[in-house]
Amino acid sequence: MALTFASLLQTTSPFSTNSIKISVLGTSLKAAKKLTKHTAQFKCNGVAGELSMSEPADKWVQFPHLCDSGRRLMEEVASMIETQLDSQLNPCCTPADVRSFKNADVDSEGSVNIKSGAQGSKIDFVLGSWLHCKTPFGVLNIATIIGMVNPQTDAPHLLFEFIQSGQSSLVLVLDLLPRKDLVLDPDYLKWFYEDTKLDAPREALYKAQQAQPYVSSSLYVRSIVSPTAILVKINSELQSTAGTADGMEKIINDVVEPAAKEVVRIWLDAILTRGRPVDDFEKDLLLKRDNMIKTKGVEVDLSSNMPRLFGQDVTDRVVAAFRKGI
Amino acid sequence: MALTFASLLQTTSPFSTNSIKISVLGTSLKAAKKLTKHTAQFKCNGVAGELSMSEPADKWVQFPHLCDSGRRLMEEVASMIETQLDSQLNPCCTPADVRSFKNADVDSEGSVNIKSGAQGSKIDFVLGSWLHCKTPFGVLNIATIIGMVNPQTDAPHLLFEFIQSGQSSLVLVLDLLPRKDLVLDPDYLKWFYEDTKLDAPREALYKAQQAQPYVSSSLYVRSIVSPTAILVKINSELQSTAGTADGMEKIINDVVEPAAKEVVRIWLDAILTRGRPVDDFEKDLLLKRDNMIKTKGVEVDLSSNMPRLFGQDVTDRVVAAFRKGI
Repeated sequence: MALTFASLLQTTSPFSTNSIKISVLGTSLKAAKKLTKHTAQFKCNGVAGELSMSEPADKWVQFPHLCDSGRRLMEEVASMIETQLDSQLNPCCTPADVRSFKNADVDSEGSVNIKSGAQGSKIDFVLGSWLHCKTPFGVLNIATIIGMVNPQTDAPHLLFEFIQSGQSSLVLVLDLLPRKDLVLDPDYLKWFYEDTKLDAPREALYKAQQAQPYVSSSLYVRSIVSPTAILVKINSELQSTAGTADGMEKIINDVVEPAAKEVVRIWLDAILTRGRPVDDFEKDLLLKRDNMIKTKGVEVDLSSNMPRLFGQDVTDRVVAAFRKGI
Repeated sequence: MALTFASLLQTTSPFSTNSIKISVLGTSLKAAKKLTKHTAQFKCNGVAGELSMSEPADKWVQFPHLCDSGRRLMEEVASMIETQLDSQLNPCCTPADVRSFKNADVDSEGSVNIKSGAQGSKIDFVLGSWLHCKTPFGVLNIATIIGMVNPQTDAPHLLFEFIQSGQSSLVLVLDLLPRKDLVLDPDYLKWFYEDTKLDAPREALYKAQQAQPYVSSSLYVRSIVSPTAILVKINSELQSTAGTADGMEKIINDVVEPAAKEVVRIWLDAILTRGRPVDDFEKDLLLKRDNMIKTKGVEVDLSSNMPRLFGQDVTDRVVAAFRKGI
């Protein structure tokens, strides 16, 4: 595929690499979680016809449109999170029309699934979402897993995006987002990033001959990621099994999966064992910083081109759900 | 040259890409400036035998060991800064044994030249330095220009490093270092980075076929740079005039110089017209953040391997001068 991926995303996707990164981090999805909390609480006693009253049979999120190895990776990561955070998470009670939405032509669809943090837990929410878009340039699949931490602890947030365009192109955005200004707080950098050897999976992934650094066009997105962020374009045409589906499956299995699982393992460990209690002064600062990311998210959502792909009705419904409670 | 530049720097240079970045930013050089201030004031009335009583005939810093185009670029940038900041700068009164130092074998030498900010100006100090080191792996030349801003204004600092190893390898580190946490202050990002189109020279430079992203091994260094930072390795072997001195000269003239001068122009404009007055609360925060960078600089300096190349005596003399007044 000869298209520039960044251009493709920017011109055709409502959730471009920039906007989805921000949208899933942002108030929008936080709002969806709040909506879930407000209307459903633990028993998911929601508004009739508005809420899905039960979770999927065995998984809180599935990724039906990714390639085999991509689907397996994302679902295993979702399962790692669910299993290890366990009692820290509420059941997924996201409204049905947020868990599944389509455009009028039924050529693009999406799903957002949120599990809020249980009362007293360290988790704000975890989110799994996907978009499947048929564009003039080909099929675009964006899968996202987010873990937002609350101000009870200073552990970083998790951001994992897996963006496939055609058989041969993959963009990965995988990071533990810092909760503090690392320049002012080098101990935070040491504790969560250096001591955990979080740069090792990034280094391993960047060594792959098919991998090239990915630079987001959004300066704000570049600002929120950590110095160990994996921001990479993978082009499976740059290997012997040039551009084939098998080529990409192999890269995901051999290169992406080990790095991704290691980052997620480090994040879970940060939540469960490394995150430190936060005093009231710090709590206010963490909250302010987290909210800035979310507010910027809303701004970017509002200026994104979601209506172009999903139509205004679907956009309004999903965005209204996202923003409710803000 | 088949060596990995980062490894070369890490194993042989007292001012590796990491340590020089921090050292020149850090308290060390700030201290040299303070020493200059304390002992010389405007008339450079320093301690006999310790201070050079006059500046070089016509330039406050020269870069004698770089290739022609590199020397011209760095000296033109130094001249742009001196000309445009003009009355905001004091004469260069750096002690003679900081302005020129060598190791015992006289196979490595260096020079640090500092002009402190005039009273009431927005400049803390500007610094021009070079190191010329003969290592087992070849000749290493590191040229640096720094502009540190004081808390009278919120304009970013300037960091410009030009690191040549052999004929065909160049590492550039060129950035306007943010004074604030960009996540908490997206307006700062917009004002100094987006509105000034500071990403354009980075994009232009990264498009060059000889340019590859450079990743510092120091997570702290990665944390202090802005999202528009130019961190690039240039390998002149990746062009038709493969690996020749002429090849590198041409790349510096055609690719590096326009980008570098544009970044410096934007920095000078930020100092002269965009920087905003700072209230007392903000001033304290700016000072704290600037000092964190400087303190981290000292820590890295102390753990660097300068003694291996310049010997302990030279190191002690230079480092003592750097640290005095802290």
